[in-house]
Amino acid sequence: MQELTLTTERHTQLIDVTQLVRDAVGQEAGTAVLVYVPHTTAGLTINEHADPLVARDFEMALERIAPEGWGWQHIEEGEENAPSHIRASLMGPQVLIPLRDGELALGTWQGVFFCELDGPRTRSLYVTVLA
Amino acid sequence: MQELTLTTERHTQLIDVTQLVRDAVGQEAGTAVLVYVPHTTAGLTINEHADPLVARDFEMALERIAPEGWGWQHIEEGEENAPSHIRASLMGPQVLIPLRDGELALGTWQGVFFCELDGPRTRSLYVTVLA
Amino acid sequence: MQELTLTTERHTQLIDVTQLVRDAVGQEAGTAVLVYVPHTTAGLTINEHADPLVARDFEMALERIAPEGWGWQHIEEGEENAPSHIRASLMGPQVLIPLRDGELALGTWQGVFFCELDGPRTRSLYVTVLA
Repeated sequence: MQELTLTTERHTQLIDVTQLVRDAVGQEAGTAVLVYVPHTTAGLTINEHADPLVARDFEMALERIAPEGWGWQHIEEGEENAPSHIRASLMGPQVLIPLRDGELALGTWQGVFFCELDGPRTRSLYVTVLA
Repeated sequence: MQELTLTTERHTQLIDVTQLVRDAVGQEAGTAVLVYVPHTTAGLTINEHADPLVARDFEMALERIAPEGWGWQHIEEGEENAPSHIRASLMGPQVLIPLRDGELALGTWQGVFFCELDGPRTRSLYVTVLA
Repeated sequence: MQELTLTTERHTQLIDVTQLVRDAVGQEAGTAVLVYVPHTTAGLTINEHADPLVARDFEMALERIAPEGWGWQHIEEGEENAPSHIRASLMGPQVLIPLRDGELALGTWQGVFFCELDGPRTRSLYVTVLA
């Protein structure tokens, strides 16, 4: 398992980490790559990397699907970050990508995105190659 | 890793691919089966296969949870398919099912569903057995 | 693959199963742990275990994101449990957690939660260590 670090810049921000993951895997042999976030207000997804507006649309949509103002009970240091937790779980804490001939078998338009949902913060990412 | 092909018929359509996945796994030994879609407007989920109306309810619900008309920024060839990307990530790009005595350890009511969210199209599905 | 059993108490209820999963893994060696639910109205997620109000917020949010009264078609024994199926898939049927030095590599605030979405019921949980 390798641990990577990244710094986010906005409250809600999707960041393309495909190259980071690819570099972490390197030449390691296996059948699939597990990418995992050890956080409760951040997630991972796989989606389009070609048009950066797709990531912006995700940020807007996640804030609307689980919005502020729903009478959340979890209050942290006077701050309502409860919807950040829900948004993180809607994306999920991990993605698992098959390896084909030693390469991530991503589709043409697919990139791996770290989903910051309560930033800005310094975050970790775990990369594990499965046998 | 095996690559399967399927053709979808509607814009939003859940298709039971359980038997396709089972056939691809065949007698291969391992601990779990990874099913993965290399697309950004399609996903995978596991849910009830007994009543086909459950799949229809998913189609309706995904179109309501991330609806048209939210002022999406990503426009492709004059077409607003941004919500298809969000719906795909809500379902996720992969499912991972344990193997028990060489069989998919699905529950009685569970089937594996390909989620077409921007069809009709010809689509791919990757099946990998993990050691 | 190990099968665990748990009993839920409410219609919608997140239950922290981290210790159950840890005990099932025991000293078994591997790279990652797959936790899987063989149900269609229950799911799994990873989120904050420190403040129990986060779990309560998830219960409320899932009931609002896929609410009653959307004209669901799937009716079971006179009961509209269609939204339970959608909520289950929004959380997902599995989580996959890397192992580091033989321990679940969970973040400080992370716990594994069983998501009951059509309880109370007796439920199963499968735990598999991947090589």
